[in-house]
Amino acid sequence: MLRHIIASATVSRQQIASDTGLSLATVSNLVGELLELGLLVEVGYQDSGGGRPRGLVAINPNGGVLVGIDVAETYVHVELFDPALTVLASVEEELHPEENRPDQVVAHVVSSVESALATAGVGHDRVLGAGISVPGQVDREGGVSVFAPNWDWHDVPLRSLLARSLDMPLYLDNPLRACVVAELWFGAGRGRDDVVVVNLGTGVGAGLAFGGALYRGATNSAGEWGHTTLVVDGRLCHCGSRGCVETYVGAPGIMQNLRDLAPNSPFLHTDDQTATIEALARGVADGDPVAAKVVTETARYLGVAVADLINLVNPEVVVLSSWVAGLLGDALLAEVRAVVGRHALRRPLAATEITLCRIAGNPVSLGAATFALERFLSAIGTNAGGLVRQT
Amino acid sequence: MLRHIIASATVSRQQIASDTGLSLATVSNLVGELLELGLLVEVGYQDSGGGRPRGLVAINPNGGVLVGIDVAETYVHVELFDPALTVLASVEEELHPEENRPDQVVAHVVSSVESALATAGVGHDRVLGAGISVPGQVDREGGVSVFAPNWDWHDVPLRSLLARSLDMPLYLDNPLRACVVAELWFGAGRGRDDVVVVNLGTGVGAGLAFGGALYRGATNSAGEWGHTTLVVDGRLCHCGSRGCVETYVGAPGIMQNLRDLAPNSPFLHTDDQTATIEALARGVADGDPVAAKVVTETARYLGVAVADLINLVNPEVVVLSSWVAGLLGDALLAEVRAVVGRHALRRPLAATEITLCRIAGNPVSLGAATFALERFLSAIGTNAGGLVRQT
Ligand SMILES: [Zn+2]
Ligand SMILES: [Zn+2]
Repeated sequence: MLRHIIASATVSRQQIASDTGLSLATVSNLVGELLELGLLVEVGYQDSGGGRPRGLVAINPNGGVLVGIDVAETYVHVELFDPALTVLASVEEELHPEENRPDQVVAHVVSSVESALATAGVGHDRVLGAGISVPGQVDREGGVSVFAPNWDWHDVPLRSLLARSLDMPLYLDNPLRACVVAELWFGAGRGRDDVVVVNLGTGVGAGLAFGGALYRGATNSAGEWGHTTLVVDGRLCHCGSRGCVETYVGAPGIMQNLRDLAPNSPFLHTDDQTATIEALARGVADGDPVAAKVVTETARYLGVAVADLINLVNPEVVVLSSWVAGLLGDALLAEVRAVVGRHALRRPLAATEITLCRIAGNPVSLGAATFALERFLSAIGTNAGGLVRQT
Repeated sequence: MLRHIIASATVSRQQIASDTGLSLATVSNLVGELLELGLLVEVGYQDSGGGRPRGLVAINPNGGVLVGIDVAETYVHVELFDPALTVLASVEEELHPEENRPDQVVAHVVSSVESALATAGVGHDRVLGAGISVPGQVDREGGVSVFAPNWDWHDVPLRSLLARSLDMPLYLDNPLRACVVAELWFGAGRGRDDVVVVNLGTGVGAGLAFGGALYRGATNSAGEWGHTTLVVDGRLCHCGSRGCVETYVGAPGIMQNLRDLAPNSPFLHTDDQTATIEALARGVADGDPVAAKVVTETARYLGVAVADLINLVNPEVVVLSSWVAGLLGDALLAEVRAVVGRHALRRPLAATEITLCRIAGNPVSLGAATFALERFLSAIGTNAGGLVRQT
């Protein structure tokens, strides 16, 4: 229902009931609760053609705010949203390769959040909740980063560390979940049941939604596609295994693909993934043959691994997301589609669209803020918690 | 509810209501419908301690019967069941390697069904429905085998071909789905949400259940794990791709593993998978070092591919099923667990049990008959269709 109001801008209770299939009584109760919470406001009346004029409601732009925090291996990106999930402020701080201790990362998160709140002129007291996405496996209930392979973090109590400085409800999850929720609410997953979001960053993984709902698996660690084996006895991976998908198509894997092809390439910025991937993207745009070859080689691995997802999961859509897809996605897409066409079975292949993430802004921050909105509504113990897709 | 009655042998409406959480009125309506259909019978009364005595119901052993048909690459296995899914008769006919034309397979199915019915002394008129499992991808609604890679079948209208001789409702699906349903109702999947059944036969695949329900994907072709890539540019596969899991751990793949290790091994029965796998199983039991080596080599591939499933899906249980698991499963299990332990991530690994199928008899026939029961109940248009787990 909330997604419907967000999409409609202003809407009457009667219209919501008829569009969602909920009874008018249920809708009126829920709208009442949301008005009381300050998430919605009354914005006027609509002539009902003879009957009583109908009250119109909309998301309250001056209600609470939500924070979405994307902690990646190379940056911290914070966005501030109104309850309609419109961006109010956006801050990004770079993480240098040596800045991977929990206290360093926490300091960047805190300063980014403070600076986003200051930019928008919003105090801590107006924050309904903050969603934090960190790479790797997380224990949501405990607020703990269980394992972040690229930083070798084990059981870091991230929520407690952040709570010392940030006085707001904090909800921890990972980028795979955040990206899927963003696509389901606002992207290529809208109205679709079976969705795979392939996250291409430093680490890689696959966010999964089945039957229109986020799939977490038995212990919230489903989607570790980055650590499925593409090459038996292949490249050594941070996780301890060999030949993982991530070692060929994650940012450091792409750097290795470049090194294998041209060890002295000017595109290569040792110890700087971001600069290297950016240089490759510029190289592709300039028609450089080495950059094109790196894309082809990367697409050869990525296409096989995406075909594996299509054969196993039979999804309606595969979305390529995250910062590597943002930089190299246009170059990769056609080649990935061609490789998938040679490796996927005909029936699931025909049912799958492969596309780039089309969400403006940062989908991980957006998804993290959406989690915060959902958890806020559940946490206050109103029926409104049932309004949002339970994830 | 039906599963509950099957498990309870005899039970009162009041007991069903209290155990299932359905209202007594709902249970009474549904029981009434099932009594009318002859699926249930009244079997006596239970003292209710002062009140009206409570009627007891049970599955009617003289009600209709269900047929479960497992068409594999090397045999046709037919089982006849009462509505409690107890086996009444069982028939198996071998399929020789050259017998892979649709008319040949259909002839074996028809003669097996006729002989099972004759053995049990049951006429066509008492058959509520027959579930048929065929390898590969199927179009359930059309009753068509869309693609069976090991036979190179394309768009074979199997249901129409069978309907010429078998006068009963016919429901087509594949062994991945049948095995999962059998495990959910009667095996290691009972009471579990996220279940993977690894089917090891001539072809291999993974049946998937999420949230306690069978997962089909967008076009009923989910679970084609056998055609995910284990070795980039590896062995050529029937599907046209290279390095598929199936080419290393399916029965012909295991024969190739044997050929690679000992080209002149007496275990090798050229063109006879069944005889070869049986000989290997006897060799393992006799402590033969070549047989043991083939198991180790096969487990090396199978373990990596099972670890991929655990990392991606994060299931509660992985069940090894089908005829190759029946013959070599005991030998494979410990080695597969060891390889999985080296390749799966710690968190999902800790949450997963890896086990052999413990269903007595043929789980594919059982699952196919369960489909027939579900579809029969839906097809007659009663509320009883809602009784069974929708698959
Ligand atoms: Zn790995
Ligand atoms: Zn294949």
